[in-house]
Amino acid sequence: MAIKYARRMDGLKGSEIRELLKLTENPEVISFAGGLPAPELFPVEEMEKISVLVLEEQGRQALQYSTTEGYNPLRAHIADRMNSKSKTNVTKDDILITNGSQQGLDFAGKVFLDEGDVVLCESPSYLGAINAFKAYGPKFIEVPTDSNGMIMEELEKTLQTTERVKMIYVIPDFQNPTGRTWPIERRKAFMEIINKYEIPVIEDNPYGELRFEGESLPSLKSMDKKGLVVFLGSFSKIFCPGYRLGWTCASEEILSKFIFVKQGADLQASTISQREVSKFMDLYDLDKHVENIKEVYRKRRDLMLKTIAEEFPEGLEYTHPEGGLFTWVQLPKHLDSKVIMQKCLENNVAYVPGGSFFPNGGKENCFRLNYSTMPEEKIVEGIKRLGSVLKSFMEEKAEA
Amino acid sequence: MAIKYARRMDGLKGSEIRELLKLTENPEVISFAGGLPAPELFPVEEMEKISVLVLEEQGRQALQYSTTEGYNPLRAHIADRMNSKSKTNVTKDDILITNGSQQGLDFAGKVFLDEGDVVLCESPSYLGAINAFKAYGPKFIEVPTDSNGMIMEELEKTLQTTERVKMIYVIPDFQNPTGRTWPIERRKAFMEIINKYEIPVIEDNPYGELRFEGESLPSLKSMDKKGLVVFLGSFSKIFCPGYRLGWTCASEEILSKFIFVKQGADLQASTISQREVSKFMDLYDLDKHVENIKEVYRKRRDLMLKTIAEEFPEGLEYTHPEGGLFTWVQLPKHLDSKVIMQKCLENNVAYVPGGSFFPNGGKENCFRLNYSTMPEEKIVEGIKRLGSVLKSFMEEKAEA
Repeated sequence: MAIKYARRMDGLKGSEIRELLKLTENPEVISFAGGLPAPELFPVEEMEKISVLVLEEQGRQALQYSTTEGYNPLRAHIADRMNSKSKTNVTKDDILITNGSQQGLDFAGKVFLDEGDVVLCESPSYLGAINAFKAYGPKFIEVPTDSNGMIMEELEKTLQTTERVKMIYVIPDFQNPTGRTWPIERRKAFMEIINKYEIPVIEDNPYGELRFEGESLPSLKSMDKKGLVVFLGSFSKIFCPGYRLGWTCASEEILSKFIFVKQGADLQASTISQREVSKFMDLYDLDKHVENIKEVYRKRRDLMLKTIAEEFPEGLEYTHPEGGLFTWVQLPKHLDSKVIMQKCLENNVAYVPGGSFFPNGGKENCFRLNYSTMPEEKIVEGIKRLGSVLKSFMEEKAEA
Repeated sequence: MAIKYARRMDGLKGSEIRELLKLTENPEVISFAGGLPAPELFPVEEMEKISVLVLEEQGRQALQYSTTEGYNPLRAHIADRMNSKSKTNVTKDDILITNGSQQGLDFAGKVFLDEGDVVLCESPSYLGAINAFKAYGPKFIEVPTDSNGMIMEELEKTLQTTERVKMIYVIPDFQNPTGRTWPIERRKAFMEIINKYEIPVIEDNPYGELRFEGESLPSLKSMDKKGLVVFLGSFSKIFCPGYRLGWTCASEEILSKFIFVKQGADLQASTISQREVSKFMDLYDLDKHVENIKEVYRKRRDLMLKTIAEEFPEGLEYTHPEGGLFTWVQLPKHLDSKVIMQKCLENNVAYVPGGSFFPNGGKENCFRLNYSTMPEEKIVEGIKRLGSVLKSFMEEKAEA
C-alpha cells in the first residue's frame, strides 16, 4: 500500500536546525546552533502575577474563543510600539496576531504563491522562511548580497528579466543568518525599486529592537507609500517565545487576506496568552526588559567576536553584527562546513552549516554562530574548541 | 495597481459563522449560531493555581522554544485518554500537538491535497473543515447521509466511479452541523470499504466525549488496521478553547508529514499552554470536569428539544443528538434559511443558515442550532422567538 500525498510533500524535508538541535541536546555540547533567547532573562515572576490577574479579572473571556484578528488591546500595544520603534504610522486595525512570526511566513506563502511563482530573497536567507514558502511550490531566486545586505543593482536586474515574481522576502535588520543590516540609503533605493515594480515585500523583523550599537533605522514599512510591505514582528526575541505570539502588519487589502487564511488555519491565536502579554505591557516596562536583553547579548557578542579573533585561524571572514543573535563565518572555498560539523560534534561544539540558508543550495563554505544562548564561559570554551577544529582542517589542506 | 495573489485567494471567503457572530454580538440577540462552550464551566480557579505552579517549577522551560511534536507528558496524557475514551491503542509518539483541531484540518489539506484532487465528505459537513481544505484547491464530493450518518452504499459507489479521491473527511460522533452519530455497524462497514480502497480518512472528533445518553462507540481510529485513519482531537470542548490546544493522532508515516508541516507553519504549539494543560491533567480529574459539562449540556439539549416541540410549526424535522453541541433543523423545500435569518435578527434571535455546510451549495432549507452556550431561560425565550418567525414564514407560504 502506498498512500498518495500532495506533491508538495515530495520536496519537504524537516528543518536542518531542528534535526541538529536534537544532536546537540547532549549537555556536554556547547551549541551555537540554535537561535534561542537566553532563558535566564525571561520575566518568570512577573508572568506569575500576570497569569493570576488575568484569570481573576477576566477568566471566562480569557479561556473562551475570541476574534480571528486578535485581542484589541494587544493589537493597540503593538501598533504603538511599531510606531515608536519602527517609525511606522499604523493602528490596531493594521495588525493581525499570529503564532510567532513563523506563522506570518506561512501565511505569506499561502496568500501570494501559486506553484511555479518566483520568490526573491537575500542570498543567504532564513531557512525557516525558505521551508515555509516551499510548501507552496515556488522557485527561489537568490539576489546577491554584500556586507550591507541585498545589492540593489542585482535586484533591479532580476526584476527586469524575471516573470512571475510574486513577492520579495527580506530581513533588513540583523539578518538571519548573516547578522547584516541594510543602511538607510539601501532601504531608500529598495523602496524606490519596489514602488516602480509594485511587488509585495515581506519584511521580517524579529530582531530589530535588539540593537547594541549605532543608530536604529526606519523600517521598510515606514517608507511604504503604496501598501506593498507586509511587516512581520514577534514577541519571541524581545519577550519570550513560549507563548508563540507574533504579528503581521499590512495594508487593509493584504491584511484581510491574511485574516481569511488565519481563520482556516487555526481560527485565532491563544486568547489567554494574548491577554497575558497585553497585561504585561500594561503593567511593566517592556522597553526596560529589552534593555536588559540587549546588555546581555551585547556582552556575549563582544566576547564571541574577541575570542574568534584570538582563536580562529587567519583568513576567515565574519560579520560584526550591530544587533540580533547571529554572526556568520566564511571559510575558504574548498572547505565544507557540513564535513567540519561532524568533527565539531566529536569535540562537543556545534553551529549551523551554511548550506541550508541558500534555497538553491551549492554554497557549503560558511556557517552561522549564535551568541544569545550560551553563558560567557561557554562561549569562550566553545569558540576555542571550534577554532581548534577549524585550524586542523585548514592545516590539513595546506599540507595536502 | 493590482497586487497579484495566489489563485486560492479568489475563492476564499471568510467563515460565514465568523461574520454572523459579529452581527450577533449585540447582547440583546439570543444567539444559537456559535459553537461556544459554556464559559461558566471553565476551570478558572484551578488554572490560577496551575499557572503559578508551572511558572514556579519550570518557568524558564515553559517560556522557551520546545519541540515541534509537543510536550511529551501532554502527549502521553492524550494517548492514555484516547485509549480509554476512543478505544485506541496508541502511544505519545503517535500524537502531534496542534493549535486546536482546526490546525489539524489545515494540515490534512496541506499533506494530502493537490489542486483538483477530490475530498469526500458527509453532506452536510463542518464548514470550518470545508474552508480549511478549500485553500488547497480540491473538488468536494458530498456523500449522501441519513439519520445514521454517511450512507455506505453511496460511499462505495462514489469510490468506484471517482478518480483522484485523496481523502475522506468524516465526523462520526455528534456531527457538526447535524448532531448525528454513526452506529457501530456503519463504522465497521466504513472501515471495510476504506481498507479495500486504501484512502486516508480524517476522523474529526472534537465532541466524542460529550455523550449524554446511549453507549459510547469505538472510534474509527480504534478499528484502523492499515494506518489510514488520522484522528483529530481537541481540548476546546472538554476543557476550554482559549489555550488553542488540540492534537493529531496518526500512523508514524502520516504523522511525520504533519510534523514537517507544523515546523513550517508555526514551529510548535505554545510551550506554556501545553505544560499548563498537562499539569491540570496531573492534578485534577478531567473526567469529572467533563461530567459537569455533560450534565449542563444535556439539560440544555433537553430544554431546547422540548421547547422546539412546543413552539415550532408542525412538519419540521430535527435531530435528537445523543451528545455534542448541535441540532439541525430541516425546513420545507421552498423555504430559504438565509432569508428567514434576516427576520430572525430583527427579532433578536440567530442560528447558522445551513447552506454553508454544503461545500457545493444548493441546499438552503436547513439550519444549525447550538444549545451549549445559552443559559436555560434564554433557550426557552430564543426558541419561542424563532418558532414565531418560522410560523410566519410557513403561514405566508400557505396563504400565498
